Amino acid sequence: MFNPVNIAIIGASSREGSLGRGLAENVLESFRGRVYLVNKRGGELHGLKMYREISEIPDQIDLALIIVPAESVPETIEQLGEKKTKIAVVYSGGFREAGRKDLEERLIDTAKRYGIRILGPNCVGFIDSWTPINATFISRERQGIPEKGFISIISQSGALGSLFLDLLSYRRIGLRRFVSIGNASDIDLSEILEYLSHDPYTRVLGIYIENIGEGRRLIDIIRMISKYKSVVILRGGRSVRGSRAAQSHVGALASPGKLFDDILRFSGVYIADSLRSFIASLEAYERLDRSDYKKDVVIVTNTGGLGVLTVDSLEDKMISLKEFDEIEMKILREIIPSYMAVGNPIDLSGDAPTKRFKDVIENLLNITRPRLLVIINQPQTYAMDTENFISFINELRNKDPNTNMILLISGGEFAIEFARKIRRLGIAVAEDPEELSSMIQALSMTPIHGEPMISRLENRREKGIKIIEKALKEGRHILYEHETKELLNIYDIDTPKRFFAKDLKDIEKSKDLLRYPVVIKIVSPEIIHKSDVGGIVLNIRNYEELLESYRRMLDKLGKYRIEGVLIEEMIEESLDVFVAGMRDKILGPVISFGSGGILVEFIKDVAFGLHDYSEKEFEYMIRSTKISEILSKGYRKYRPIDISKIVSVLAKISKILEDYPEIKEIEINPLRILDEKMIALDARAILN
Amino acid sequence: MFNPVNIAIIGASSREGSLGRGLAENVLESFRGRVYLVNKRGGELHGLKMYREISEIPDQIDLALIIVPAESVPETIEQLGEKKTKIAVVYSGGFREAGRKDLEERLIDTAKRYGIRILGPNCVGFIDSWTPINATFISRERQGIPEKGFISIISQSGALGSLFLDLLSYRRIGLRRFVSIGNASDIDLSEILEYLSHDPYTRVLGIYIENIGEGRRLIDIIRMISKYKSVVILRGGRSVRGSRAAQSHVGALASPGKLFDDILRFSGVYIADSLRSFIASLEAYERLDRSDYKKDVVIVTNTGGLGVLTVDSLEDKMISLKEFDEIEMKILREIIPSYMAVGNPIDLSGDAPTKRFKDVIENLLNITRPRLLVIINQPQTYAMDTENFISFINELRNKDPNTNMILLISGGEFAIEFARKIRRLGIAVAEDPEELSSMIQALSMTPIHGEPMISRLENRREKGIKIIEKALKEGRHILYEHETKELLNIYDIDTPKRFFAKDLKDIEKSKDLLRYPVVIKIVSPEIIHKSDVGGIVLNIRNYEELLESYRRMLDKLGKYRIEGVLIEEMIEESLDVFVAGMRDKILGPVISFGSGGILVEFIKDVAFGLHDYSEKEFEYMIRSTKISEILSKGYRKYRPIDISKIVSVLAKISKILEDYPEIKEIEINPLRILDEKMIALDARAILN
Repeated sequence: MFNPVNIAIIGASSREGSLGRGLAENVLESFRGRVYLVNKRGGELHGLKMYREISEIPDQIDLALIIVPAESVPETIEQLGEKKTKIAVVYSGGFREAGRKDLEERLIDTAKRYGIRILGPNCVGFIDSWTPINATFISRERQGIPEKGFISIISQSGALGSLFLDLLSYRRIGLRRFVSIGNASDIDLSEILEYLSHDPYTRVLGIYIENIGEGRRLIDIIRMISKYKSVVILRGGRSVRGSRAAQSHVGALASPGKLFDDILRFSGVYIADSLRSFIASLEAYERLDRSDYKKDVVIVTNTGGLGVLTVDSLEDKMISLKEFDEIEMKILREIIPSYMAVGNPIDLSGDAPTKRFKDVIENLLNITRPRLLVIINQPQTYAMDTENFISFINELRNKDPNTNMILLISGGEFAIEFARKIRRLGIAVAEDPEELSSMIQALSMTPIHGEPMISRLENRREKGIKIIEKALKEGRHILYEHETKELLNIYDIDTPKRFFAKDLKDIEKSKDLLRYPVVIKIVSPEIIHKSDVGGIVLNIRNYEELLESYRRMLDKLGKYRIEGVLIEEMIEESLDVFVAGMRDKILGPVISFGSGGILVEFIKDVAFGLHDYSEKEFEYMIRSTKISEILSKGYRKYRPIDISKIVSVLAKISKILEDYPEIKEIEINPLRILDEKMIALDARAILN
Repeated sequence: MFNPVNIAIIGASSREGSLGRGLAENVLESFRGRVYLVNKRGGELHGLKMYREISEIPDQIDLALIIVPAESVPETIEQLGEKKTKIAVVYSGGFREAGRKDLEERLIDTAKRYGIRILGPNCVGFIDSWTPINATFISRERQGIPEKGFISIISQSGALGSLFLDLLSYRRIGLRRFVSIGNASDIDLSEILEYLSHDPYTRVLGIYIENIGEGRRLIDIIRMISKYKSVVILRGGRSVRGSRAAQSHVGALASPGKLFDDILRFSGVYIADSLRSFIASLEAYERLDRSDYKKDVVIVTNTGGLGVLTVDSLEDKMISLKEFDEIEMKILREIIPSYMAVGNPIDLSGDAPTKRFKDVIENLLNITRPRLLVIINQPQTYAMDTENFISFINELRNKDPNTNMILLISGGEFAIEFARKIRRLGIAVAEDPEELSSMIQALSMTPIHGEPMISRLENRREKGIKIIEKALKEGRHILYEHETKELLNIYDIDTPKRFFAKDLKDIEKSKDLLRYPVVIKIVSPEIIHKSDVGGIVLNIRNYEELLESYRRMLDKLGKYRIEGVLIEEMIEESLDVFVAGMRDKILGPVISFGSGGILVEFIKDVAFGLHDYSEKEFEYMIRSTKISEILSKGYRKYRPIDISKIVSVLAKISKILEDYPEIKEIEINPLRILDEKMIALDARAILN
């Protein structure tokens, strides 16, 4: 597709404003090889003959671009089959996304019969800036196409894809390849990405994803690429409403995206939070090396207020400024004019000419080498000699290409032109504080390398499967609490000391086995939320109270089928988290972690990850929650705990998911965090 | 200042690039009255003589603009005194901001002696677009100055102020007045705002605030203005952490910035979350009427993906789309080409010409009148006839000026020019999805009218003051828990039934007064966090256990000074919130509300407000928290409760703050929410 011998455009047109003409003109202007135009009414375009039939073309056809009405696409494919076509791009809409799944299936069946691969249908096409070939119908008068470069863009929305190109071009960011995959009924996102993963000219990948239906396959290819290329993802349909809009758009279901986004985020992929941060982070990746800049930023500004807003925005993303030490401060005080305060940001005042920037920055770099230098220049007075400034920035970069810097230039026409000149030097420019913080955040993402952690746990299925088989034999799709806990114990997850009692006689046996106080919980296949119906009594102090509580509970819950009761030693109050594993329809086995307790759903302090994450990924996942701050730093009576202990619980639950395909969901809530150990107070498992 | 008879510029200069020249040129170009230039070396500028001395000016001077070195400013003021000057703008820096507080005091003392009001020092000046007068040194080559309009901008940062002007001008938003207040050592933000509150040409106010030191006075003037003008605030320095030595949990969350922002937000002021949303919301306020658009937005788009991203961004700000009913859907299906899915957003496809927009929108408006119509037009193919589109939008607006619409146009050069043409029609344009959602959020802010709620509560100080006086007499700056609860009871806030026991003999008296189980809590002036030291025993079942617990507690806490114990009836588990009141150094008495419990500081689900809020404001405050969702909708065993009940607790705590200046902080945490009532389980008060 990217390097065709020749191209035929079926549905080329000479009609002004038509997509067929736009496409033909783009191809003719960009592609150096042979191009054949086909239009059933004949005629010509820019002196080039239009064939009435594909069969009239006196040659085999390598790549076909099809832009005829949906109904005639299958027939067109058939004709291309005779011409040994290898690949066809179908631009036409009117397939699955318009309720014509049948037509799309006919299209694909036909293509398969002839061994033709299909891009689309319902797409905007593709671009390769190096071949070069522009096989889109994007109007070049209305939207810019970037110059040759190293960024590849893959988009599930064609029109949005063209907007990305326009914005990249506007910011002078170079393009390697662009692909609009449309309905992706043959070539899908994963396949394109896999192909580009081998492409040495693609250094950065920007991907727009609405439909995550390719699931684990898509996740894996993105995770693999992100180990050695920079990847930025913009997700459409994050909100429930959004995914409905997506449904009518690409014609496929986008499941709630939190899962997808979390999984990739903890794997080192930058998930942009807006259109603007998507484009800005692509610019950053193209212009700077990836490195953790988050604690070592120095800002030099001629606009104090813009410095303040920038610090606010950085702080929101946990990025902090370098703190100058005493010696640095002393030297800075000598350099910086006496009427200016010294600190970070270094405020040069609005009337700073280039000379002041130069003096301060050169001296600064002599005494310290911040990982990242941010220069804010808002040209507001005549004192600002912008041409000299541009030369200074160029010198600065040439003197030491390792100086990482980003310029922040906000404003109207003059500022835009000024920014453009800086960008021409190959230097990244943020247009506002939020873009800047997105850029730094993206650059600071760490590529993750490491084996799946579960691979280190030995297989214990033999013991555990008995518990599951028993439940299945009894026709249950839920494990009782004590069964789930037995399973957890097999995987070395601690639980309170317990005793399962079928009846009064059993309870007698427990008499000297447990230390009071204890808790008693009903065990019934019919009761899911025990505490809601009074199926739990806490704080039982002695055997007499236990008997009394048991009798009362049986009286109250007589209408349910009762299997018995679970008696457990009470555990002291402490911090509660939850750990859960489940099989997502699209993404397969996933793990979650967060603040525990009954209000989990409202506190929404939760992170999702893959069950086969590496240790580092599990750690990032845990550290993304608010509760992790208390866990790692301690708080009042809670002592700090080692996060790796929780990581190991996540890995154990993951291993359970792997060992038992029979388990659909397993949840520990709460997992109580004590100083010395973690105890699963309540747990449940649901079977397939 | 805004309408001077004549102007003298002290420090005018003919030197290229100097601020003195920039200022003089701006004034000369804009102002129609007499201008005198003063430069101690004499000379001339554009044929106008420069006087060497102020005394040489053959006239009284109404307004003086001073741009000479800081050291000579006081002397200059002295000379202006002789010329009967009424007001002087001091542009010069080098005062307080550079550690020269002394010089600033001399400047102000001198000015006071002559009755001269001062704007500045260290400011960029001011603009009145209607007089007109541009008394800034902003370079007009580098930054745009907006045309005449109805927005006034007040900025605590001069350079940032000039950026606002540049961005407004770029977006063709008209300006009424601009004031850079600099160090504000005489005329401050509150005074300028008070003045502008009477200005009929100022319809919208945009304010940049870093320093909130003017406190309650500033808050009150902004709240007053926001009742009848639109106010947008951009806050710099949000991330600066408060250095409050907080004794309560909530106090630790009360950074000065969060407090200030919350207070104004719940009063109906739009607090912009970025530079871009600041400018965009100003544009929205200038072009559209304020109204609650949050549930009634219809989007028509030619870029499905941009529609999806827009819905995501709206959803983030709780803005939802109109849901078409069955009849509307039926009619829409007839209007919309069959190959397109029907829904909201209405996706017209990337190849939509103006005609398709026109057909769909006109028909849509015939069957339904959404509060807000959002039109997304990304011109990507030649099919998009932009000139026709602009005419269509113009017609649409002229046909019914009540059609509220915002266009969303993203992209590079062509899109920018296209947006500019739309803006020329007086129609608001968002440049990306985030700008659009900020605009709608700003427009949907409701101006608040209503009396302070505390005015409705009768004064009960007489009873309560005895409790406080007793503590003060004993040299305590903290009320014991039972004392605080006594105070709460006086204000009709429920607490558990309690008994305070000094010693064992007292405990005997409690025997038949309380219903078990009870809780016992230590009362000591030396113990603040009772549960951390084992000063609380829960779940005491009977009198014998009570005695035992009492003895054990005394043993364990023997090293503290013990006043006695508090015995209380246990209250069933339920949802916990907190309510607190405190006196902030800058803002005076404030109230807070949020999710309760020991983890308050980490969950950070908290809102702050003024103690003399109206009922509506208290309600907005509560509704801004996450926990309010559970409270108002119910969740599992928790039934929905009436938010007005919590409002009344906030008002009662407010009244306590008002009635007792002696109280510095008072906190109920937790306030337990039961179906029928709310009970303050724990409470404390700190005295001044």
